[in-house]
Amino acid sequence: MTQAIGYAAQSADTLVAPFTFERRALRADDVAMDILYCGVCHSDLHQARNDWGNTMYPVVPGHEIIGRVTAIGSDVTSVKIGDVAAIGCMVDSCMECGDCHEDHEQYCAKGSTLTYNGKDRRDGSPTYGGYSDHIVARDHFVIKLPEGLDAERAAPLLCAGITTWSPLRRWNVGSGTRVAVAGLGGLGHMGVKLAVGLGADVTVLTSSPNKVEDALALGAHRVVLTSDPAAMKAAARSFDMVLDTIPVAHDVSPYLRLLATRGVHVIVGAIAMLPEIHSGMLLSGQKSLAGSGIGGIAETRELLEFCAEKNILPDTETIAMQDILHAYDRMERNDIKYRFVIDMASLAKEKA
Amino acid sequence: MTQAIGYAAQSADTLVAPFTFERRALRADDVAMDILYCGVCHSDLHQARNDWGNTMYPVVPGHEIIGRVTAIGSDVTSVKIGDVAAIGCMVDSCMECGDCHEDHEQYCAKGSTLTYNGKDRRDGSPTYGGYSDHIVARDHFVIKLPEGLDAERAAPLLCAGITTWSPLRRWNVGSGTRVAVAGLGGLGHMGVKLAVGLGADVTVLTSSPNKVEDALALGAHRVVLTSDPAAMKAAARSFDMVLDTIPVAHDVSPYLRLLATRGVHVIVGAIAMLPEIHSGMLLSGQKSLAGSGIGGIAETRELLEFCAEKNILPDTETIAMQDILHAYDRMERNDIKYRFVIDMASLAKEKA
Repeated sequence: MTQAIGYAAQSADTLVAPFTFERRALRADDVAMDILYCGVCHSDLHQARNDWGNTMYPVVPGHEIIGRVTAIGSDVTSVKIGDVAAIGCMVDSCMECGDCHEDHEQYCAKGSTLTYNGKDRRDGSPTYGGYSDHIVARDHFVIKLPEGLDAERAAPLLCAGITTWSPLRRWNVGSGTRVAVAGLGGLGHMGVKLAVGLGADVTVLTSSPNKVEDALALGAHRVVLTSDPAAMKAAARSFDMVLDTIPVAHDVSPYLRLLATRGVHVIVGAIAMLPEIHSGMLLSGQKSLAGSGIGGIAETRELLEFCAEKNILPDTETIAMQDILHAYDRMERNDIKYRFVIDMASLAKEKA
Repeated sequence: MTQAIGYAAQSADTLVAPFTFERRALRADDVAMDILYCGVCHSDLHQARNDWGNTMYPVVPGHEIIGRVTAIGSDVTSVKIGDVAAIGCMVDSCMECGDCHEDHEQYCAKGSTLTYNGKDRRDGSPTYGGYSDHIVARDHFVIKLPEGLDAERAAPLLCAGITTWSPLRRWNVGSGTRVAVAGLGGLGHMGVKLAVGLGADVTVLTSSPNKVEDALALGAHRVVLTSDPAAMKAAARSFDMVLDTIPVAHDVSPYLRLLATRGVHVIVGAIAMLPEIHSGMLLSGQKSLAGSGIGGIAETRELLEFCAEKNILPDTETIAMQDILHAYDRMERNDIKYRFVIDMASLAKEKA
């Protein structure tokens, strides 16, 4: 066991504050990393506040982790000491079910082990996330960063990136595919960059006129204002995919009207009850309403390689760990383009 | 113009009764057929009763039509006089939009012209369906029946058949695909036969223990009783597709739980508001809730050829036109395995 320093929420009222805890001793298939950077995901705040009613306190959030390998177990061959590597939303799965065998560890039949607010499969101890100085995790879930990928800005690829990449790949987005991205936050901005990178024709759907310029700056080919009925009518039946990153419950019917025949509306943002829809919206045009959650390890490797090759990186703002509450405030007000990344060197102050 | 005899509903209260009307004179791209057989679809009754609030009276139902060509317009090359041919749910579309060009005439951007209760695109006259002695329709929508396909039993392929065939093909059902068919009526029984014909592993989902034997007789490999919680739990995550032929509004959540990762639940029966669902049911496992409506002309040709080759035919019961009200009664009570077909020779009595 090693002592770790991090930031944890102790209850739904306190958000996160300095916290000292233990990381497990290295198993044969474990990798230990000093954490360099950790992205700040809206889930971190939801979990700290117990918005989903399942938080196990204390909770150390953070699942967009970039670190440097400091030690490896005797069976580890995928990384070596000194490598820069990444950990995303999962740190383990059964590795035996059909989904694990097909590289969908995130949909493991026995449930994947989440990077934080989870329970270790072998000893039942709580998992603690990336708001900390170091981490120990099973090798399969630690991915060596490709050469040339900026370690600081890469962090949000591990959640915001893979969550948009997985559906883009699943539904074969490529040259000529007409993709609309609904919502322009952490997920949405990656959806735009990745779809553009894949060669798609990309439209941003937003209710905010003040996001038009931002969307175009990210590479979108055009913007449709969802608040403009004439524009929405003109866009009817014109997209092969709507990538829906809107983080709250909403009526998808206006978006289903925008789908071309055989189009798919993929929800990646809202984990919520959806208002009822009329089946005719799906029957007419053989349309699909789908969902997608993060991505598997092979997909994540593919994403990191794609981003390295295409030089695609999240737009980030780096903060110190001590600035996290202010960052949460700004995230709640959508006052971030588009993802905060914590520089874990700032934790040195807590140790002093 | 030619005089036609048929059965029409004159109001929501009267259902269908003998009716004399005019069919248009042959246009250059028209085909005239004497109708041999017409399947009885639940839509016929819905439309006769104005259940959907859009019926234009008088309405001559019937969109599962098999006939013998009696005359062709000067431009027609696809059929010749004497051919046995079929007409399904559509008799025209714009033939110019992207959907028409891609063989999805049923999703025509300008709306396809329905076989009955529609309006002719050129002269605005009402379209009258297959409960009649003859019909005149645009050549593209008249399909020559393949050699060896039983004309009498083939009729229901034109709606019940194509409505299940189109999603089976769209989602690549084939050898080894795990398909569950929910509901065992006109559509469901064709879904079972076609999925089995395609080589899929087929399960019927039904709430009625008394349908188990019927399902197995149709070729299903097994039955899961939706009323049995233990059986439903055991079937969790086990299907690539649920083909949902249930004709009324219902909660799809119990079925979404049965889908494997990347599975799709396709609604083909219920045209209705769907109860709300939790997006987590879709996100977890990258699942889709889709819909599908009838099929295009190329798909219908493909279906007829497939059925001729594999000797797949609907289970039918032939009736006289004069028995239609009794047939409606039995259809309402699900007392039919699985489709009524009207022998139009019976209309001779009305002419006498």
